[in-house]
Amino acid sequence: MALKKKPVTGMKDILPKEMEIRNYVMNMIRETYGKFGFSSIETPCVEHIENLSSKQGGENEKLIFKILKRGEKLKLESAKEEADLVDSGLRYDLTVPLSRYYSNHANELPAPFKALQMGNVWRADRPQRGRFRQFMQCDIDILGELTYLAEIELVLATTTLLGKLDFHNFTIRINDRKILKAMAQYSGFPAESFDTVFIILDKMDKIGLEGVSEELEKEGFARESIDTYLGMFREITSDIQGVRYIKEKLKDVLDPKVAEDLETIIASVDAVKSTDFKISFDPTLVRGMSYYTGPIFEIAMDEFGGSVGGGGRYDEMIGKFTGQNTSACGFSIGFERIVMLLLERGYEVPGTGEKKAYLIEKNMPADKLLTILKQAEEERRNGTQVTISIMKKNKKFQKEQMMTEGYTEFVEFFRDKL
Amino acid sequence: MALKKKPVTGMKDILPKEMEIRNYVMNMIRETYGKFGFSSIETPCVEHIENLSSKQGGENEKLIFKILKRGEKLKLESAKEEADLVDSGLRYDLTVPLSRYYSNHANELPAPFKALQMGNVWRADRPQRGRFRQFMQCDIDILGELTYLAEIELVLATTTLLGKLDFHNFTIRINDRKILKAMAQYSGFPAESFDTVFIILDKMDKIGLEGVSEELEKEGFARESIDTYLGMFREITSDIQGVRYIKEKLKDVLDPKVAEDLETIIASVDAVKSTDFKISFDPTLVRGMSYYTGPIFEIAMDEFGGSVGGGGRYDEMIGKFTGQNTSACGFSIGFERIVMLLLERGYEVPGTGEKKAYLIEKNMPADKLLTILKQAEEERRNGTQVTISIMKKNKKFQKEQMMTEGYTEFVEFFRDKL
Repeated sequence: MALKKKPVTGMKDILPKEMEIRNYVMNMIRETYGKFGFSSIETPCVEHIENLSSKQGGENEKLIFKILKRGEKLKLESAKEEADLVDSGLRYDLTVPLSRYYSNHANELPAPFKALQMGNVWRADRPQRGRFRQFMQCDIDILGELTYLAEIELVLATTTLLGKLDFHNFTIRINDRKILKAMAQYSGFPAESFDTVFIILDKMDKIGLEGVSEELEKEGFARESIDTYLGMFREITSDIQGVRYIKEKLKDVLDPKVAEDLETIIASVDAVKSTDFKISFDPTLVRGMSYYTGPIFEIAMDEFGGSVGGGGRYDEMIGKFTGQNTSACGFSIGFERIVMLLLERGYEVPGTGEKKAYLIEKNMPADKLLTILKQAEEERRNGTQVTISIMKKNKKFQKEQMMTEGYTEFVEFFRDKL
Repeated sequence: MALKKKPVTGMKDILPKEMEIRNYVMNMIRETYGKFGFSSIETPCVEHIENLSSKQGGENEKLIFKILKRGEKLKLESAKEEADLVDSGLRYDLTVPLSRYYSNHANELPAPFKALQMGNVWRADRPQRGRFRQFMQCDIDILGELTYLAEIELVLATTTLLGKLDFHNFTIRINDRKILKAMAQYSGFPAESFDTVFIILDKMDKIGLEGVSEELEKEGFARESIDTYLGMFREITSDIQGVRYIKEKLKDVLDPKVAEDLETIIASVDAVKSTDFKISFDPTLVRGMSYYTGPIFEIAMDEFGGSVGGGGRYDEMIGKFTGQNTSACGFSIGFERIVMLLLERGYEVPGTGEKKAYLIEKNMPADKLLTILKQAEEERRNGTQVTISIMKKNKKFQKEQMMTEGYTEFVEFFRDKL
């Protein structure tokens, strides 16, 4: 078989320049989230096929890279369908593995447990510009915290991180799954159609109120329900007044504590924030995954023209593993998008120190090489980055090349001068 | 399908305590190798099945986790063998992907190119204590450097790292594939049997000279060859004298430059080294992979009772991708073994700073919570790690638990005192 030079379809090789930014962002993430008390953990990239097909992953379950059974377990002759051939797959997110991890280790972990995960996930999506089939996710989750303290801390940690990476003027959009449902219920949509309603509502950004109205009508919903529903969206403001409007308007179908908690989350984040961003109530925010049970949030950034992260409360997923519900809330930032934005900006990673190149004449005798190596050892020990290269014929070109790698100082060694 | 709590067979969840050490070691690796001029790169975890089955991976090719084709490409009905079902697999090492990477990007990379890779690899080995089917590898490679400068720099970088991680008194065993072959040739073994001879020689550690002699005899090799061969091993010393003995003894079958270069490598490393270890010539060192073409080396550590890393020169692998040979030399450290040793030693990661826990009374009113959050914000900004938890009924137990996580200071907040 011929060897292939390109990476597999939809995945990418990462060059040194991008890796420098990735490593910098990862260190910043660990440092910032660490200050909030999050601990790093890791799960295997390979997960049981049963866990990946448990309906927790929504559309992502269609995109799994599946792994073939091995040895005697693979029975090719008698296999009737795909499921007979595989026993595992590559994880498509970090939330399902985290829930498994927590179920498996709860008694070895503090309660509540604040987890930081950075790791690759895989989705066999149609390849498109800027989206890859292997990409890094970065999640923080608080497990076992019932109150909105979890939401507040997650939003503060995430926004502090973005501020440190020099992102400002973004918006945290926040809503609550319970408000989403109560608004649909109040308007008279039948409960079994809520998901259809939300899928249409989710397009508000793109098609506007009129577009949503038309699509709902096309689905055959009652005119009255549509009018009541859209009437509310016309009146709701994106601040605390909006939340109070909802609390009053939906008082017969919504526990007032849901709106009160949302108000506290918004007000607290707004009062405590140390970086420049807006947090706004957005009743059109849906978030795709059906596992969310409470507050949901998303980061909108003009510079990117879309979401660079999101999350929410999912109090029922861990119970699917343990039989006992554990409150859980998470926030995921779009690591790859952040790296892309920093690359586009030409972001320079700060403080990598002095970079020096030793250029040594070809065929340097062993005893003279020793002198050079000793000098390099001393400089490196004192914190200077030193690379040693054999001098090329076109020394000028060689130096120019090395300057693009960030080498600023060159020391030349000739055998006759040592 | 029932959800599964345990990780897939042979893989492991990583708890916060171990992650702390892993992150520390990874940072130390990036910092130390960075000073030697190595740049981080990354390749996808998924690799073309053609590249993984190219005979570069030796025994590891039997252990591949293979990935099922997707969509229309998967033709279950007409599939006759495993190969019809798969198009890719999880990489089993970082060397094959690096060779592909370099072939694909050579014109975007400096020459020579010094690469640092840290990443997971997968092998479907029989599960056993302390060995996992997903594990981290950490490789440095110098591509495009013809001379022994590559070997010297690789050994110095690796040993400097081990010293910084507080490992001392280990031994770098070094040999050259060309010496290995010349010794077999000189003894009169037939060229087609060299691999058999080397597999037996590789057991010298365990079965000694007599054992090797018996096994060679059992294979039917001539008594005279065996005696000549073992006679040399009896006389060779593990220092530079040993290398000189080889140079003289094998002068008719070995280019003297091979021995001279090895002598220079050993002498240079010995003279420049800044940490406490031994480098010794070991003519019994074989290294499994057949792709090695020149010097080979391994780290032996008493504490571990075996190898914690190794590498060598493989000047012909990249040519398999490009049609044009590129000199290449790499050193891989046993990341998982190093982490295991540090964990066993009870290694404390230095300088993680002050860790403070705020314990707040249950149902704290929103306005008072704000005061607490603001205080936390300020402390975090000034570098203190602060975690905020709701006070539990058994506060004493709660604090004891948090002390095991490293929290040393506790601040309690009661609503009536705010």
